[in-house]
Amino acid sequence: MIGHGFMGAAHSQGWRVAPRFHDLPARPEMTLLVGRNASGVEASARKWGWEQTATDWRAAVERDDIDVIDIVTPGDSHAEIAIAALQAGKHVLCEKPLANTLEEAEAMAAAADRAGKGVFAMVGFTYRRVPAAAFARDLVQSGAIGEVRQVRSAYLQDWLVDAEAPLTWRLQKEHAGSGALGDLGAHAVDLAQFITGQRITGVTGILNTFVHERPLLDRASGQAGTVAVERGNVTVDDLALFSGRFDGGAVGSFEATRMSTGRKNALRIEVAGSTGAISFDLENMNSLGFYDATLPGTRQGFTNIMVTEPAHPYLSAWWPAGHALGYEHGFTHQAKDFVEAIAEGRQPEPSFADGLQVQKVLHGVERSAEADSIWTQTV
Amino acid sequence: MIGHGFMGAAHSQGWRVAPRFHDLPARPEMTLLVGRNASGVEASARKWGWEQTATDWRAAVERDDIDVIDIVTPGDSHAEIAIAALQAGKHVLCEKPLANTLEEAEAMAAAADRAGKGVFAMVGFTYRRVPAAAFARDLVQSGAIGEVRQVRSAYLQDWLVDAEAPLTWRLQKEHAGSGALGDLGAHAVDLAQFITGQRITGVTGILNTFVHERPLLDRASGQAGTVAVERGNVTVDDLALFSGRFDGGAVGSFEATRMSTGRKNALRIEVAGSTGAISFDLENMNSLGFYDATLPGTRQGFTNIMVTEPAHPYLSAWWPAGHALGYEHGFTHQAKDFVEAIAEGRQPEPSFADGLQVQKVLHGVERSAEADSIWTQTV
Amino acid sequence: MIGHGFMGAAHSQGWRVAPRFHDLPARPEMTLLVGRNASGVEASARKWGWEQTATDWRAAVERDDIDVIDIVTPGDSHAEIAIAALQAGKHVLCEKPLANTLEEAEAMAAAADRAGKGVFAMVGFTYRRVPAAAFARDLVQSGAIGEVRQVRSAYLQDWLVDAEAPLTWRLQKEHAGSGALGDLGAHAVDLAQFITGQRITGVTGILNTFVHERPLLDRASGQAGTVAVERGNVTVDDLALFSGRFDGGAVGSFEATRMSTGRKNALRIEVAGSTGAISFDLENMNSLGFYDATLPGTRQGFTNIMVTEPAHPYLSAWWPAGHALGYEHGFTHQAKDFVEAIAEGRQPEPSFADGLQVQKVLHGVERSAEADSIWTQTV
Amino acid sequence: MIGHGFMGAAHSQGWRVAPRFHDLPARPEMTLLVGRNASGVEASARKWGWEQTATDWRAAVERDDIDVIDIVTPGDSHAEIAIAALQAGKHVLCEKPLANTLEEAEAMAAAADRAGKGVFAMVGFTYRRVPAAAFARDLVQSGAIGEVRQVRSAYLQDWLVDAEAPLTWRLQKEHAGSGALGDLGAHAVDLAQFITGQRITGVTGILNTFVHERPLLDRASGQAGTVAVERGNVTVDDLALFSGRFDGGAVGSFEATRMSTGRKNALRIEVAGSTGAISFDLENMNSLGFYDATLPGTRQGFTNIMVTEPAHPYLSAWWPAGHALGYEHGFTHQAKDFVEAIAEGRQPEPSFADGLQVQKVLHGVERSAEADSIWTQTV
Repeated sequence: MIGHGFMGAAHSQGWRVAPRFHDLPARPEMTLLVGRNASGVEASARKWGWEQTATDWRAAVERDDIDVIDIVTPGDSHAEIAIAALQAGKHVLCEKPLANTLEEAEAMAAAADRAGKGVFAMVGFTYRRVPAAAFARDLVQSGAIGEVRQVRSAYLQDWLVDAEAPLTWRLQKEHAGSGALGDLGAHAVDLAQFITGQRITGVTGILNTFVHERPLLDRASGQAGTVAVERGNVTVDDLALFSGRFDGGAVGSFEATRMSTGRKNALRIEVAGSTGAISFDLENMNSLGFYDATLPGTRQGFTNIMVTEPAHPYLSAWWPAGHALGYEHGFTHQAKDFVEAIAEGRQPEPSFADGLQVQKVLHGVERSAEADSIWTQTV
Repeated sequence: MIGHGFMGAAHSQGWRVAPRFHDLPARPEMTLLVGRNASGVEASARKWGWEQTATDWRAAVERDDIDVIDIVTPGDSHAEIAIAALQAGKHVLCEKPLANTLEEAEAMAAAADRAGKGVFAMVGFTYRRVPAAAFARDLVQSGAIGEVRQVRSAYLQDWLVDAEAPLTWRLQKEHAGSGALGDLGAHAVDLAQFITGQRITGVTGILNTFVHERPLLDRASGQAGTVAVERGNVTVDDLALFSGRFDGGAVGSFEATRMSTGRKNALRIEVAGSTGAISFDLENMNSLGFYDATLPGTRQGFTNIMVTEPAHPYLSAWWPAGHALGYEHGFTHQAKDFVEAIAEGRQPEPSFADGLQVQKVLHGVERSAEADSIWTQTV
Repeated sequence: MIGHGFMGAAHSQGWRVAPRFHDLPARPEMTLLVGRNASGVEASARKWGWEQTATDWRAAVERDDIDVIDIVTPGDSHAEIAIAALQAGKHVLCEKPLANTLEEAEAMAAAADRAGKGVFAMVGFTYRRVPAAAFARDLVQSGAIGEVRQVRSAYLQDWLVDAEAPLTWRLQKEHAGSGALGDLGAHAVDLAQFITGQRITGVTGILNTFVHERPLLDRASGQAGTVAVERGNVTVDDLALFSGRFDGGAVGSFEATRMSTGRKNALRIEVAGSTGAISFDLENMNSLGFYDATLPGTRQGFTNIMVTEPAHPYLSAWWPAGHALGYEHGFTHQAKDFVEAIAEGRQPEPSFADGLQVQKVLHGVERSAEADSIWTQTV
Repeated sequence: MIGHGFMGAAHSQGWRVAPRFHDLPARPEMTLLVGRNASGVEASARKWGWEQTATDWRAAVERDDIDVIDIVTPGDSHAEIAIAALQAGKHVLCEKPLANTLEEAEAMAAAADRAGKGVFAMVGFTYRRVPAAAFARDLVQSGAIGEVRQVRSAYLQDWLVDAEAPLTWRLQKEHAGSGALGDLGAHAVDLAQFITGQRITGVTGILNTFVHERPLLDRASGQAGTVAVERGNVTVDDLALFSGRFDGGAVGSFEATRMSTGRKNALRIEVAGSTGAISFDLENMNSLGFYDATLPGTRQGFTNIMVTEPAHPYLSAWWPAGHALGYEHGFTHQAKDFVEAIAEGRQPEPSFADGLQVQKVLHGVERSAEADSIWTQTV
């Protein structure tokens, strides 16, 4: 695994736990953890249970005893590592967003296409693997809501509400590519396309930055109150609002923001069809709302399905009905799905091509926002 | 009162009940009900308690013993009646939307401006008078959520989901002006502006029609299954999605649809500010969500305020805490506010100018939608 | 109508509004309002729209042009008035609880039995007439939850949480009979029996008083802070907890309290059967939770039915789907049901016998509580 | 660890994950897994990551290199194993309920008392370690709801609703001790006492069995439909309802059932005090309802606190705010708390004495139920 930040902890838990609950065709070995800071990566490896460490990702790519490269670094290094790993014949799991620019994403998808027979790449949209989201897709694809017409998708967080929150790399375009759009909007788009089975073909959008200057990260610490805090420019969006049309005829609205006060991790999606609807909110991740318009009229309503039954996706491996799963289970399910596909010689989903397609939608939103919200094709 | 459809029943209940719970400075008398069909209006008057009837609205405008004209007809007759009534020195209460076209709305606002001293006109956005909505405004205006940044407003119904629902006048542009946009979007816009105290200055939007042909109303009845049902074209939108910027710096998303399966009367609004947020859904109309980001961090969360305390807006007249009000109470509160303003010689809110402003926003959405969603100024 | 307190306002609204929305076989006339204080009753009559007033309830009973006596006085005068009215051949609607003592309740039920042919008495458990509660009964009686096994019923309010709330008559046994038990527990029992269609046959219970002394009502006012407040003893329960067995085999728990902090008017009931369950809370009175255990396992869950469809009980007279009703609509429905039954010569429900049976259950709880919670038969 | 059923999986996950997220003073080693069936325990050990296996629990007690014995067998073997382990100087973690009989529980508590200095025993009420439950206790103990008055506690499941569910050992008194009472009621009692900080001193209760005969487990399989299914008697309760008084003056109601249709794992508790209230439901385990009656009246309501902030109990080790934890995290927290207490030479909570006290309450309920619900002291 390359990288050992917050996502590193989550992926480590995925690799560690997956074989303890699921019957996997191959057992993952947590061989090598890579990070640029030797003592830091050593500490992470000890804590998370990785056998060895290295400070250069090339060490992993070059080793013959390593089959899988898991990339959890910031987006600007994804392309270089992933392409090299694929060329070296390694399977690749890469965190989302696939890359910071459309060009890099295209190069990565091309590298995955060119990879040898039986070498696969996957992008880490783990929210597909929340059982309630996976079950939402099952319902929609089985026709339970009829013809899909409307989508309402939003990913709302609030950790940037405070205007004095520091100017991290996530707020600088050169490092992060975009703001809430790429960080959160990518999930909202992927989940909408995953559940509906439709692809977005065009968009109109606006981007907005509410707080234009924030304290510089290293200058701010330790001096609060005594000297003037040095500030830098926020160069990404705080809020993205866009609407899109899908290739199957559906129409959707999307929102991504890290300034929606009171919403901590609210990835919400509502999908309405000709005979039903579903409703999901990641802040209540073990439940799915389902409206069945074919029931007798007086008995219709949104049913709060606790997606914890053994027959629900991923659940047979876990606890009795009603016992909740949490955030990190998505990473366990991701490890399971990835290992199974690799072992069976199948392309795991979502592929780099899927990741590229999401990137194109986000790119379309940016172009629309720069051009007075004009309608912009994304295919 | 001119008109005696669904809105006539609601307004009648407002006039009847207001003086029984509120201490009004003047007691409304339900003198004359006007409708084109003599026997129909006679039956309505008997049922609702109006003293007399007429078949021509001019009868009301010409009578000296009538002070107030309440207009609840479809939108295409609002302008003519309201302008005549104002010219005759009557106070006017006119249902929303103010008119079907921007031109008519402008003429009505001008007539209200020209009306004699102490003659007033009001437009019927009653949802402002749901106590939870009024309290939301109070909170926001008192600074309880800080600087207002984001608005998420939607009005969702589902009575047109069925593709075989007949082609009523509400689905024909020549009669209804627009579809969900004018019928429901008008409320979403008014409520957002009312609560934030900000005005929308520009929009980008899309309109969509999912079902393009529907059975003709009079042809469809009685023949189902035996002969081919004659169909006509739906010439209005089924769905309106738009985003707007407010003059105070806020940004908002809006949705109006009558095809959101499972949503019966979901006028929803969420407003996020720099120190808090509010959340409201008309389907749960006695409650308001309020997030106070100034509380200690571990105690923050959305508080479900039951807006039924005597100290909440309009509530001192009603029942003990926890006893719910319903849909029609908005009309009672409207009657109360209207009578009080008239008796005190004040302009009741929202004025025709307010109604015109909402109309301009909707008009901007239509123009944007016709021009590839290009950003469109609305002021 | 005899009495003109809070309940007088509610009943007046019921009589006033019922004929405006429902097609009644007879139109109620609000002829005479009776109260002991001449100026007070005069003011109430003017506000609520009663034609005449009197200060002695016998005036109503003796008049030939009055057909119905509606009793909304405190419980200790119910028996005398109701019995006299029935003897005079008047139909009687009497607020709950039927009486303060079992003996009075028995006398009232006997008087109703003895009343002339076509003379009827009804007790005012209006919560049966909340559409969601009525629909819950319909579901259960139609077999939608199978064999009824468990009931969880509670009526929670919080207006006595403050230990400095004054010692009103409701806190004195000689005037109120009991505390939360009779005031709120009566509703919890009636609703449970109404929905299940089963009668409670035995109980075990405890009663508790948390605040034993409170400021005397008339002494407390105007002197706060200056002199010692005089206090009196609370002689009724603050909390009643009891369990009961039903004649159909179900088992239930009950709670009544006016000190459940944060609960304003939470009459809650959950009923579980062999193939389903229902869940209702008066604080969310337009909704009913329904669990259908015969659906496919992965689609089961509590469905939030908005009980606002035209096909739901009482709803055809009101607004389109999704438009909420409020507290007072129960009184309108009560007026409707009463008038219809009287006009058709049927016994309206719940009868005085039904009210007496509830009283016996409450009496059983008191006896059990006095005898170390020993199991006590109530039939 | 002795035992390898469902609880074995949960405890294994606790031991495995705790050191990966928390900084523990000692690292647990998963040395030996014991089960009576050699091949079964071998498979479990391989799956869960235990190094060695044995078929006799005495093997564990006798080994010098083992410091901790974790007991997850059915209740009837707890006493023998725990007492032997304590006598051998091992720390013991024992699943709830402590034992099947009061006598055994007393013996275990005595053994823990007699254990050598620095040897500790703990009972596994893990729901205390759900962050929202732990935070509820913190709030109540900090005085945030004032003087505690009322408790409403219930543990509702529904896996025995089907009358054809087989007669497992959990339905036989000789193996399980009691039914829902011991299985679920134990949690309801422990959680209520944990949060309030008060102990139950007396109870009145009833027990009920709805389904008296069920198919025998081994006879039923494979033959359904072809021959008459042999049935056996259910000798434990399906439902326990009881009320209790606490030593601090609070009064509470309790319910335990495995036949509450639609409730999968609903451990609910509401606690009301003189200045606030809390509300929790394990089916929504990342949230806590908190009512603060000291806020301005118009702003009061139940606040839905997402207990996922770094400052909430246990949360600093996990994910960013808003990222949910699940059922098994309680076992990770249990492992952490146990290891920390042992390493620091402190008695971990809840102790065997705490477990015994809960047992006494359940025993009191049984005695009350057998004696016509008579009030029964439990101290």
